[in-house]
Amino acid sequence: QAKFVIYIYSIYQTPLSRATYNQTHSCGELRTAHLGEEVTLCGWVQYVRQDLFVILRDFSGLTQILIPQDESRLVLKKTLCDLPLESVIMVRGKVRRRPEGQENKAILTGEIEVHANNVEVLNICQKLPFEIKDFVKKSEGLRMQYRYLDLRSSQMQYNLRLRSRLVMKMREYLCNLHGFVDVETPTLFKRTPGGAKEFVVPSGEPGRFYSLPQSPQQFKQLLMVAGIDRYFQLARCYRDEGSKPDRQPEFTQVDIEMSFTDQAGIRDLVEGLLQYSWPEEKGFVSPPFPVMTYEEAMRDYGVDKPDTRFEMKLVDISGAFHNTQIQFLREALHQPGGSIQAICVPQGAVSSTHMHFSFSHLPSDNFGPCVRLLPDVSRQQLLQMVGAEPGDLILLTAGTEGRRPLLGRLRLQCADLLEGHSVKVRDPSAFHFLWVVDFPLFLPKEDSPEQLESAHHPFTAPVPEDAHLLYSQPHKVRGQHYDLVLNGSEIGGGSIRIHSASEQRHVLDTVLQEDPSLLSHLLEALDSGAPPHGGIALGLDRLLAIIVGASSIRDVIAFPKSFRGHDLMSHAPDFVSEEDLRPYHIKVTWPEGLTPGGEDQ
Amino acid sequence: QAKFVIYIYSIYQTPLSRATYNQTHSCGELRTAHLGEEVTLCGWVQYVRQDLFVILRDFSGLTQILIPQDESRLVLKKTLCDLPLESVIMVRGKVRRRPEGQENKAILTGEIEVHANNVEVLNICQKLPFEIKDFVKKSEGLRMQYRYLDLRSSQMQYNLRLRSRLVMKMREYLCNLHGFVDVETPTLFKRTPGGAKEFVVPSGEPGRFYSLPQSPQQFKQLLMVAGIDRYFQLARCYRDEGSKPDRQPEFTQVDIEMSFTDQAGIRDLVEGLLQYSWPEEKGFVSPPFPVMTYEEAMRDYGVDKPDTRFEMKLVDISGAFHNTQIQFLREALHQPGGSIQAICVPQGAVSSTHMHFSFSHLPSDNFGPCVRLLPDVSRQQLLQMVGAEPGDLILLTAGTEGRRPLLGRLRLQCADLLEGHSVKVRDPSAFHFLWVVDFPLFLPKEDSPEQLESAHHPFTAPVPEDAHLLYSQPHKVRGQHYDLVLNGSEIGGGSIRIHSASEQRHVLDTVLQEDPSLLSHLLEALDSGAPPHGGIALGLDRLLAIIVGASSIRDVIAFPKSFRGHDLMSHAPDFVSEEDLRPYHIKVTWPEGLTPGGEDQ
Repeated sequence: QAKFVIYIYSIYQTPLSRATYNQTHSCGELRTAHLGEEVTLCGWVQYVRQDLFVILRDFSGLTQILIPQDESRLVLKKTLCDLPLESVIMVRGKVRRRPEGQENKAILTGEIEVHANNVEVLNICQKLPFEIKDFVKKSEGLRMQYRYLDLRSSQMQYNLRLRSRLVMKMREYLCNLHGFVDVETPTLFKRTPGGAKEFVVPSGEPGRFYSLPQSPQQFKQLLMVAGIDRYFQLARCYRDEGSKPDRQPEFTQVDIEMSFTDQAGIRDLVEGLLQYSWPEEKGFVSPPFPVMTYEEAMRDYGVDKPDTRFEMKLVDISGAFHNTQIQFLREALHQPGGSIQAICVPQGAVSSTHMHFSFSHLPSDNFGPCVRLLPDVSRQQLLQMVGAEPGDLILLTAGTEGRRPLLGRLRLQCADLLEGHSVKVRDPSAFHFLWVVDFPLFLPKEDSPEQLESAHHPFTAPVPEDAHLLYSQPHKVRGQHYDLVLNGSEIGGGSIRIHSASEQRHVLDTVLQEDPSLLSHLLEALDSGAPPHGGIALGLDRLLAIIVGASSIRDVIAFPKSFRGHDLMSHAPDFVSEEDLRPYHIKVTWPEGLTPGGEDQ
Repeated sequence: QAKFVIYIYSIYQTPLSRATYNQTHSCGELRTAHLGEEVTLCGWVQYVRQDLFVILRDFSGLTQILIPQDESRLVLKKTLCDLPLESVIMVRGKVRRRPEGQENKAILTGEIEVHANNVEVLNICQKLPFEIKDFVKKSEGLRMQYRYLDLRSSQMQYNLRLRSRLVMKMREYLCNLHGFVDVETPTLFKRTPGGAKEFVVPSGEPGRFYSLPQSPQQFKQLLMVAGIDRYFQLARCYRDEGSKPDRQPEFTQVDIEMSFTDQAGIRDLVEGLLQYSWPEEKGFVSPPFPVMTYEEAMRDYGVDKPDTRFEMKLVDISGAFHNTQIQFLREALHQPGGSIQAICVPQGAVSSTHMHFSFSHLPSDNFGPCVRLLPDVSRQQLLQMVGAEPGDLILLTAGTEGRRPLLGRLRLQCADLLEGHSVKVRDPSAFHFLWVVDFPLFLPKEDSPEQLESAHHPFTAPVPEDAHLLYSQPHKVRGQHYDLVLNGSEIGGGSIRIHSASEQRHVLDTVLQEDPSLLSHLLEALDSGAPPHGGIALGLDRLLAIIVGASSIRDVIAFPKSFRGHDLMSHAPDFVSEEDLRPYHIKVTWPEGLTPGGEDQ
């Protein structure tokens, strides 16, 4: 049944036969192997040096062009020397070895130069708000306003091209190697229950709105019912989250769903996917990834997405304080579920002067040199328990389990602070993947804790051993949800789904007390021969940001929005006239004090 | 620079190592080569035959399962025989040869059957609004309401899987073979000038709206300015066209843009792309495709997207009527630009009784047996001119050039009518590609003909020979626009773009008299080192519909909208409460006589 196909992968293509411009090479391509060849290059003027050389740039690199110096070509020389930076030219010429001593080892084309015979100016750059040089720092606002210039930088070229390459490998793995079907699902959909963060799109019918989906969750499950046994899509998703840091109103997920599988099946698939598509210059991915339960993660790291690149785990040191006289510790231990937890920060005491300030916002009675108050024996026990060495700093919290996340955040802050003082904590080139599993299926609602809400979404199936508890003690049920964590960031999440209509109806109706009529089409679908199925969604933007080491996902998106959701280049969102809104039967309700319109109206 | 990668293409994958269900094969896969093997199949119960066999189905085909008949397994037998159709089961058993004489040549697994040892019922189908059999005709409304069942049909499975396969091959061609970069552009954008058909999306800021782009036109050009020399994207596009037949509010285009190229370069690329990605079961695509000018197309076919699978071209027969006494013909010939045009419908006279009716809506004085009034000489001349044979039908129009489209439509109607009477006109398995070029750059506005509007869009560059006319006689300028036509449908269109800011400003400002400030970011971009560039967009849905022979693009889209833009399954668009609209500062303006809300509110 298998068919073999051989194809050629090349980062640069052979020039198309009839192209006018007839580029023969890219600007990063020429080597001494090309000496003597007649070549044609197209690119941007990076700079002009000594009235002798034009340095020509494209995405692939730089080539030095020697400007003809003979009397007969003074016009050409003058044109080139007067050219504004970033003008676009085409150069025809011969590849020559650079004179001895003039080689440039810093660039790959540094042994050659092109002696220009003919230069054509394709476009003169009239305006340049900033220079396209990697060392020129630009403000974020300027970068966004002139994104088309910002994208010329070698870092952004790398990021966008890496994104394309990674996604292509993912598709090869899913489509060509594993029989997945790439299916596009609609963007114009219906508001989902509780979809408070969904953008609405007015339709031509009064009062009726589409909404932009936060994920293709319903569609991917319906595709399983439809017999598309292996679905994937690079899905655009929408979430109206206002000004949350480093979120975008639209983002992309690698959306996957399979029939007749289980958690381990999805994990295997995703591990293979990342291994196959991982950029080779970033090392290797080695499956299987470690698996940790939610409980273990909270216990050892105080967070459900542990950064496992470094230790400093939380340690329960209650044992060292059995007979403590320290009031607040004793009280903490006597609470139901109370304990004392610690992390040991290697060399933290040495750097503690600097670190002190950032802790000042914590309740002061949790901190301080209280260890001095301990008897010598338990002090020794404590040091042993946390494995402290001289110079280390031990941080404690005392209280119920709810205190663990505090220590979890301190752990990360300490790592940042230490690294700020050049103490090596994490290997910046390391990629630590981790599966977190066995999440609770339901959580108490924040505003009314007697009610339950889904920890992830209402379609997650219970862990089989816990399924019977759905009908008696739903708060105790663990879900078949799994998160994929990379270097302490959640880069994916998914679950095995409920495929029984009656179980799904029970969850919606009885446990969550939601109106199941909003999902009647899904319930009907489950009743018409739904196979067991599960899936996952990987956050592509976040994954890429981690791979390239970007501090924001904006650096891996071609045209991102600003923090406030604005496109600073085109000025979206923008005012729309009343007349243009009329076909949609809507009207702007201007808040008091604000007058309609602006300069755009 | 080239790197060789060998990979394996298989339509079905090796099972993932740890999957619970451990399917070993798909239902269309087993042959006599598997005899004796223990296999595990998962699928849907297509039907149960004689209490002996379950016919199991998945996307790949059918397998006959022999139900155990021994006394000890009566429960299993009963379960299987009572199973509703479309229930989901897993079967473990041995592959056996069917008894002689019981083979089924109609299916690929027809020589074998699986003797079940173990059957697990994974889900019982409780509700089935229609049977999943290809011969059961369902109404369009029912198909859309239960799309997840409709998609189980072998035709829809084929369509969606072909779509995935075709798109994957396109990506391989563009990314892996030709160095294109797959870049995602935003969906939340700004209203474009004249973008009357753009959906709006209210933002959280009073009065400000995003809009959903009709195409990534601006972004693809900005990417060229950004030095992404070869861009492509499978781009979702949005157009609010109400109830135009066979349009969807969202559709997908293969969006391509290149720097340093020309028309021939784009044509070469696209021809190679279609050749590479064409499904092998649909024959071969043979570049180069013929190229026809707009003028030729209008002259010979009366339309700018000729169906070149058959002749019946328009012929100018004015010469045969120089001395005609027929009043309206004489008048027509005396008009400026007047002529008499004809098409000759082979065997049309034979079928003309049937064809008569459909022509009755045409102005009657253009038709009729007026040829009888001609003197014998010009009658002979006429027959020769159009190449008529006995039994053919000749249809004429007389008037100015504007009459040609009428004859062009008649030509297509005749073909349909003849085919309706089983006269072979077009080969249904043939694919005739055609480039149409040299369109006028501007056209008179329909409502005020003294003003000009872009024939396609304002970014199209003029044909170089005509560029000087931009400043004197813009209505005479031909544009560097090209359409790709397949079997009489436009499946793609593109152009070489204007890359000079001053030329672009002149077109917007002087020729089109539009407010250039709306495109100031694009004009600025052209001024900061824009390379010459051009591109194309192929309509993926339309292309696929033609390839699979579907009458509507709905048959190649997983979850299409109805004619009225509704999702009949989930009931989108839907009512949204006033409260949910408040964050967007909008309010519904109910037309008189309509009260707010409906059953959904």
